[in-house]
Amino acid sequence: MTLDDTPMFDPTLLKDLDWNQNTVKFTPDVSPSSPGEGLVLRPLCTVDFNRGLFDLLSQLTKVGEVTTEQFLKKFEHMKQTGDYYIVVIEDTKLEQIIGSATLLIEHKFIHSCAKRGRIEEVIVRDECRGKQLGKLLIAVLTLLSKKLNCYKTTLECLPKNTAFYEKFGFKVGEDVYMQNRFFD
Amino acid sequence: MTLDDTPMFDPTLLKDLDWNQNTVKFTPDVSPSSPGEGLVLRPLCTVDFNRGLFDLLSQLTKVGEVTTEQFLKKFEHMKQTGDYYIVVIEDTKLEQIIGSATLLIEHKFIHSCAKRGRIEEVIVRDECRGKQLGKLLIAVLTLLSKKLNCYKTTLECLPKNTAFYEKFGFKVGEDVYMQNRFFD
Repeated sequence: MTLDDTPMFDPTLLKDLDWNQNTVKFTPDVSPSSPGEGLVLRPLCTVDFNRGLFDLLSQLTKVGEVTTEQFLKKFEHMKQTGDYYIVVIEDTKLEQIIGSATLLIEHKFIHSCAKRGRIEEVIVRDECRGKQLGKLLIAVLTLLSKKLNCYKTTLECLPKNTAFYEKFGFKVGEDVYMQNRFFD
Repeated sequence: MTLDDTPMFDPTLLKDLDWNQNTVKFTPDVSPSSPGEGLVLRPLCTVDFNRGLFDLLSQLTKVGEVTTEQFLKKFEHMKQTGDYYIVVIEDTKLEQIIGSATLLIEHKFIHSCAKRGRIEEVIVRDECRGKQLGKLLIAVLTLLSKKLNCYKTTLECLPKNTAFYEKFGFKVGEDVYMQNRFFD
């Protein structure tokens, strides 16, 4: 196994998203195919391991020490399930990943054997904020989860970020989120 | 494909759980191997489709119309990923599933390519409540998620149920849970 540009999921899924269905306003206008000057939005591939993926994720939380082999094994498992959609934004000049967000499909027997989306690990490099990239990532994952026929998509966030997610149709409900932490 | 008793996951995982690590008190004493008179706790198998599985789930939420083929296809996908651990309690006299709970493993790059547990669809038949079966299911899934090396396990629940989950080490934190509902 080596690092290459094989995408985690079919890139045509992103190309075929109907951006007209996006209800969130972008000023100036950006889209999945035009995320900004010198930027590309696409599925994660393994060579992104050498393009600062973990450095980016370390701005979100603890990443620990990860070898190429561990990364490839995890990537391969995610890809094989067909249920992991990690979308990244690359600065093609710097060859660096500057944004990333995960849509994960969870399978159910309830709701007619439905699929449910989970949005996880949403992060944009601190020096690249203010370019609507986080907004673009969530707009894309919201459209993608609808396209994949999820009956709902959910996430957990800090209280200060709820207003941001409300733009895309996410609502705070009655349910309470609980964690049982075993180790760091 | 036909309905049979092939388990969704390796049953020895449940047999080998170290019940001494359980910190929740049961009165009278029950355990994974002795859940109660005439009851068995085990992984879900496909023939449970004919043992009232969906009738049980309908006490939790909408289940819709599901054919044997749809059920088998979903079961097979869950099994193939190796990430779905649905534990059921069967009343062996009635040949009915009277309790069920799901542990789902979510894969991460963060936290040294960690695994995270999610507890979903926890339900005990209404006429079988008060027998500590819900408590037993959550004690089992908590031990199982530790054994599978999850760095944390999380769930969403109604505010009235938080005290129940606190017994197992679940804590309400700062994070807010948000939903984006696309259809029922």
